[in-house]
Amino acid sequence: MATIIDGKKVSIELLKELQKKTDKLQKKPSIAVILANNDDASRIYVNSKEKQANILGYKSMVYKFEKTVKQEELIELINKLNNDSNVNAILLQLPLFNHLNENELIELINPIKDVDGFHPLNTGKLYSNLNPFAVCCTPKGIIKLLDYYKIDITGKNTLVIGRSNIVGKPMAALLTNRDATVTLAHSKSENLKEITKTKDIIISATGCPKLIKKDMVKQNSVIIDVGIVKQNNGKLMGDVDFENVKDKVSYITPVPGGVGPMTIACLMENTYELFLKQN
Amino acid sequence: MATIIDGKKVSIELLKELQKKTDKLQKKPSIAVILANNDDASRIYVNSKEKQANILGYKSMVYKFEKTVKQEELIELINKLNNDSNVNAILLQLPLFNHLNENELIELINPIKDVDGFHPLNTGKLYSNLNPFAVCCTPKGIIKLLDYYKIDITGKNTLVIGRSNIVGKPMAALLTNRDATVTLAHSKSENLKEITKTKDIIISATGCPKLIKKDMVKQNSVIIDVGIVKQNNGKLMGDVDFENVKDKVSYITPVPGGVGPMTIACLMENTYELFLKQN
Repeated sequence: MATIIDGKKVSIELLKELQKKTDKLQKKPSIAVILANNDDASRIYVNSKEKQANILGYKSMVYKFEKTVKQEELIELINKLNNDSNVNAILLQLPLFNHLNENELIELINPIKDVDGFHPLNTGKLYSNLNPFAVCCTPKGIIKLLDYYKIDITGKNTLVIGRSNIVGKPMAALLTNRDATVTLAHSKSENLKEITKTKDIIISATGCPKLIKKDMVKQNSVIIDVGIVKQNNGKLMGDVDFENVKDKVSYITPVPGGVGPMTIACLMENTYELFLKQN
Repeated sequence: MATIIDGKKVSIELLKELQKKTDKLQKKPSIAVILANNDDASRIYVNSKEKQANILGYKSMVYKFEKTVKQEELIELINKLNNDSNVNAILLQLPLFNHLNENELIELINPIKDVDGFHPLNTGKLYSNLNPFAVCCTPKGIIKLLDYYKIDITGKNTLVIGRSNIVGKPMAALLTNRDATVTLAHSKSENLKEITKTKDIIISATGCPKLIKKDMVKQNSVIIDVGIVKQNNGKLMGDVDFENVKDKVSYITPVPGGVGPMTIACLMENTYELFLKQN
């Protein structure tokens, strides 16, 4: 029976540390969130971020836009936020309405205020192991979970499934920087089962419910589940067939309560760290 | 018996195409090379680049520095080259003398003149599959070789050994962008033999002579050898035990005459492409 990785607990500890550090600050970190979509999940997520920022005493602003918003309005807003020394962190909540050019806007964010670490200058620095201003929150949170549970990464055979710019690719880069052997697989990968079976650590970020089954994983491996899909019955489901897989592996994250809470805690930490870099 | 991938032949074809395109230009592309080391290999390499640029009719300038060179002198030179509209491509030959700060200088190069694609903005864009101004020459050349020989990449199990920012990491990114499953291994990887044995395509860039032996590779796999080390007897040696491995695989690059010639051809192509982007 695996140890269930308690992301809730670890995130609370991280936030407590952050609270202590923030309390010592005269001026408080501030984060501006841009919400330009109709996505329910995004709205819930932005609310959680705002709530957490308020608890920490950060200044938090949310800019919500209707579907009629023009690219130019967002360009103008980002330029304004870039130039506002009272704003330390800019978060462009993805996805955007379809008509908007996401990459143009990401590139417009001043890299030192790019709290998600999505700007190519920051991803490039992450990739070359050269101190990006910020590291994407979900992969950063996963490394913290592995470290908290003292799971050895160096030299291990690790697998990241899913190659999004938000999770999969930066996750692979972080693992490489931590001396893991890293395989990056995705929807086009042939023979996924053959690939998963030999890995010491699997991080799955596909959004395909129950993709990872018991016969696909190695005995005593470590399973991190980034997937989160709401079923018709309202239940949240991860990429991993948790009930069956948990008997075979050494560590596993639940959904919910695994990776999710770490993402928001890392966003708060990134905001704090950007504040320090600017002050 | 494998097909020997003829990098010399493919590079000559690429250069011929480039010659045709360059001949049609009124103004010619220009490249500035900065050489600040005592490394014999670098000097030979810079000479080859200069020679090839001259053949194509590019304007080529080489700035050579002694060991007494200061970081500030190179900063000043790069700023000057960035601002000179007659310079399309800037190449900072690596490695630099030890006392110099390589990363600071790479980041100083205007990304649109960064002919090696080493600037973090360009690596970040490569990594996120977002059209960098230029892609690192050796990995780009390897993709061209695979394409020339119609070697299928999509969905294949590929392995890159060596995680340098110059070859290994950008190679992994290019393969991911071409829908391969990519494993990135390196000196800290455990059980390398177990990793190599299952791969359809192996790209080795370690500089460890004869690291890859016959019993490590899968029947009919494809082997690309980026390693090149001069032996005491003057012979150049790759990462792969070529004589034995060639009987087991379907395609293999020789050393020399495999990847090497493609690197210079791609450098010339990058210079041409940067010229077009600036004109």
